[in-house]
Amino acid sequence: MKKYDKLIKNAAGRLVPEELNGQKAIPYMGIGKYRPTGRKYAPLIATCADYPMDGNKIIPNLKDALIKSGLKDGMTISTHHHFRNGDLVAQQVFDIAAEMGVKNLIWFPSASFECHSTLIKYLEDGTIHHIEGSMNGALGRFTTEGNMTGIGVLRSHGGRYQAIQDGEVHIDIAVIAAPTADPFGNATGDRGPAACGLLGFALGDSEYADKVIVVTDNIIPFPCIPWQIQGNNVDYVVVLDQIGIPEKIVSGTTEITKSPDRLLLAEMTAQFCDEAGIIRDGFSFQAGAGGTSLSIGIYFAEILKKRGYKARFARGGSNKYLVKMLEEGLVEYILDGQTFDLEGVRSMRENANHLNTSPFTSYNYHGKGFFASLLDVVILGATEIDVNFNGNVVSHSDGYLLHGIGGWQNCLFSKCTIIPIPLFRDRIPVIIDEVTTLCGPGELIDVIVTERGIAINPLRTDLIEKMKGSSLPIKTIQELKEEAEKICGKPSKPKFGEEVVAAVKWVDGTVLDVVRRIEK
Amino acid sequence: MKKYDKLIKNAAGRLVPEELNGQKAIPYMGIGKYRPTGRKYAPLIATCADYPMDGNKIIPNLKDALIKSGLKDGMTISTHHHFRNGDLVAQQVFDIAAEMGVKNLIWFPSASFECHSTLIKYLEDGTIHHIEGSMNGALGRFTTEGNMTGIGVLRSHGGRYQAIQDGEVHIDIAVIAAPTADPFGNATGDRGPAACGLLGFALGDSEYADKVIVVTDNIIPFPCIPWQIQGNNVDYVVVLDQIGIPEKIVSGTTEITKSPDRLLLAEMTAQFCDEAGIIRDGFSFQAGAGGTSLSIGIYFAEILKKRGYKARFARGGSNKYLVKMLEEGLVEYILDGQTFDLEGVRSMRENANHLNTSPFTSYNYHGKGFFASLLDVVILGATEIDVNFNGNVVSHSDGYLLHGIGGWQNCLFSKCTIIPIPLFRDRIPVIIDEVTTLCGPGELIDVIVTERGIAINPLRTDLIEKMKGSSLPIKTIQELKEEAEKICGKPSKPKFGEEVVAAVKWVDGTVLDVVRRIEK
Repeated sequence: MKKYDKLIKNAAGRLVPEELNGQKAIPYMGIGKYRPTGRKYAPLIATCADYPMDGNKIIPNLKDALIKSGLKDGMTISTHHHFRNGDLVAQQVFDIAAEMGVKNLIWFPSASFECHSTLIKYLEDGTIHHIEGSMNGALGRFTTEGNMTGIGVLRSHGGRYQAIQDGEVHIDIAVIAAPTADPFGNATGDRGPAACGLLGFALGDSEYADKVIVVTDNIIPFPCIPWQIQGNNVDYVVVLDQIGIPEKIVSGTTEITKSPDRLLLAEMTAQFCDEAGIIRDGFSFQAGAGGTSLSIGIYFAEILKKRGYKARFARGGSNKYLVKMLEEGLVEYILDGQTFDLEGVRSMRENANHLNTSPFTSYNYHGKGFFASLLDVVILGATEIDVNFNGNVVSHSDGYLLHGIGGWQNCLFSKCTIIPIPLFRDRIPVIIDEVTTLCGPGELIDVIVTERGIAINPLRTDLIEKMKGSSLPIKTIQELKEEAEKICGKPSKPKFGEEVVAAVKWVDGTVLDVVRRIEK
Repeated sequence: MKKYDKLIKNAAGRLVPEELNGQKAIPYMGIGKYRPTGRKYAPLIATCADYPMDGNKIIPNLKDALIKSGLKDGMTISTHHHFRNGDLVAQQVFDIAAEMGVKNLIWFPSASFECHSTLIKYLEDGTIHHIEGSMNGALGRFTTEGNMTGIGVLRSHGGRYQAIQDGEVHIDIAVIAAPTADPFGNATGDRGPAACGLLGFALGDSEYADKVIVVTDNIIPFPCIPWQIQGNNVDYVVVLDQIGIPEKIVSGTTEITKSPDRLLLAEMTAQFCDEAGIIRDGFSFQAGAGGTSLSIGIYFAEILKKRGYKARFARGGSNKYLVKMLEEGLVEYILDGQTFDLEGVRSMRENANHLNTSPFTSYNYHGKGFFASLLDVVILGATEIDVNFNGNVVSHSDGYLLHGIGGWQNCLFSKCTIIPIPLFRDRIPVIIDEVTTLCGPGELIDVIVTERGIAINPLRTDLIEKMKGSSLPIKTIQELKEEAEKICGKPSKPKFGEEVVAAVKWVDGTVLDVVRRIEK
């Protein structure tokens, strides 16, 4: 954390620093307003003369691979989160670093999970200086309470790719856990004991890191296909006994909600999409893996079936419901960013129309377009929404940073972004005057669906027009906020210290907001 | 062409310039001796703010797309050769450039064919300054006779990728003809009226060019899969009536040889591989699409079948014979660089184990390894081989530059490189004292198979040992040369002018040899 002498008010009205962990930072300038002028990060040119001609890059153990990769103080080490709460690799990397006495590392995961709370000891003893990635659960509490030496930097999945590509984050060593790999370093996530579907979150790491280590517990003869990670970018391969805990990688328990409240939200959302003309033959949608989102998918499927429509594509987080839609011909393509259950993994392996995508294809704002803006509708969650439609997904109203951004910011660029949320959770209003942490500008959030009414962003006059005469309870967001306050009372604000503990980047690398230390 | 004041003797003993078309050039230093020190070429950072949010990048016509791409004097324009002699796109690009009065362009094709001899008029009128790529047939004659303003630069497929990646060649505009594409620019070669299989030769262009134009005659709704070319790298999409002549793209007539001489070469080569222990369960091979090579494949198939072996992978140039081996289970994977017939195209579309590869995966010497060196054996051709096992593939003994290098140089890195060639062609010896143009250093060429004997490179003591007692006619290369001369006489040397008309690059970007102007 850091107490800044000077903070700048950015285009969203948030006070942010112009420097983060010693690097220049640019305050958020508005959507599409910041124009990058530089060139992409240029990795060193390699030569095959330095690599084994027989293609065998296997190194006996991870420690040797890290030593050969030049592990030293201050380096940035990246890992991916496709193993979710079943990851066994990040821990080992920092165990080795700590054992070697290496200090001040930057951990650059594509996301963190509860299983990573064991790394807190390395944040305490100086092995890890700070995290650039999500700080979930215990790591988030640790950070929010001001215990991390550096400042946490939160990025969306697309923002992470952008930061790597643009050279904002230079990865010294990428450690890529791979469910299956060959000795050349070609790797896939769609098979093997730790199968997780795909490895897209590690793509940028493999392309731009100085050194790339593939770690697997399922080594097969060349060629490992599909080569989701290309061996031509890989320096070393390490074979371990186990790299992930299968049941924690894919839970297999993702189920549609049985809660009547959430089912209502799902039904209202689907009906809204239908009445607004969003569901049509050839449309496209993205819904997350939460119970409500899954249920919306089911409603979509029913409508498509009834009308004889087909969705052209769905973006996932794939799961058994989406796979069923694909296999029943209700969806032509699944463009998958991460598989959430074993059916998703199976389908990716078996169905040619179930495609593995990456933050590059889907989310990178500093590309020549991205898939995110092609979606007709995305369904997202939020911890808070304010009366200006601004959204928060990383912190709670008590001020604690507890979640990552994921693809949330990137998805906001869809043609219609709908957020179905309860009006309050545990008697704390979800729709409030001002979000605790700004993660997404209200201009990009189109519709809020609550059990007590639906608010359409006033900027979307087209949607307001279309929903005239609807039987759905269309209200203003102000009305929704007041209803919430009527029931729960005006929420009290948490007490923050002056120190900044984390920064939230926008999709273009600018600083959208900060998280402050909480006074316990 | 150019008459140099000073030429340097490189590590192969060839006199080469230190400058080509105004750019610094490095003389060849030996295999693996030149060590790149710089960074990869870094393209400008793009922003989605500059691209249509609905993903529709279609521009009404190619001229508009070229104008929007900023076409102007001196630019480098790239095209690919997957349409082989059926390409209808390169011609149109330069027709437009000529019509606009643009001058001094550099054409950077991945290869040229006879159909491109119509571009000679643009080399004559100054629209095109020179070609970096192959100068085949009429273009080669035009070049060799000293008619091209600049110096032609010949690179292998891998060398072309290396040159792009390393920033040796900066592509201003890449025009990528695509048999199928979507409005976002995702493109594939495996389907559509001009189906050619894959588009791997355009991969580097799409990644590194300033502006990328996809040209198609089969536009489909997003998503076009497989996205062999990724729309995230594409600026504009142009829809034309026809981009290629199908029967000239895939001839459908590639057949095994009926010539008894060639069949003998094929049989001897297969027998050599068998006796040398190269053919084993799980081995890998690459053979070209010529009649002899195809026949070798047939012999391999017979041996595999007889022994109950399976090849782990074959690299193509795929064709119906290789596809049959895949579908009969004699080969587990085809790693395909270009499809040579319609069966190859079909198989790539239908067989998950028929993979599309690129010069990046297979041939780039400036990567972290490449597939080329993993092959147990490759079968290649040559126009000339000299007594030091040096090979020539670009010029004939009359001094005329008539062919490109293709993947030939890259393939030399296999574990065993075998060149089956007739001892003489049209009464001109193929095995000679010194190759006219040096394309591949003899250290990398292991075995020469001729109808009158097989020569093993003295460096391969292991192979010589293994073949002791073989019934095959093992001879020295000197003996083979003498036999040829006994029959044809000592060949006369062509009369060269002093001017350099083209340079041959090695896989690492250094200059291996030059081609001189021929005195008619």
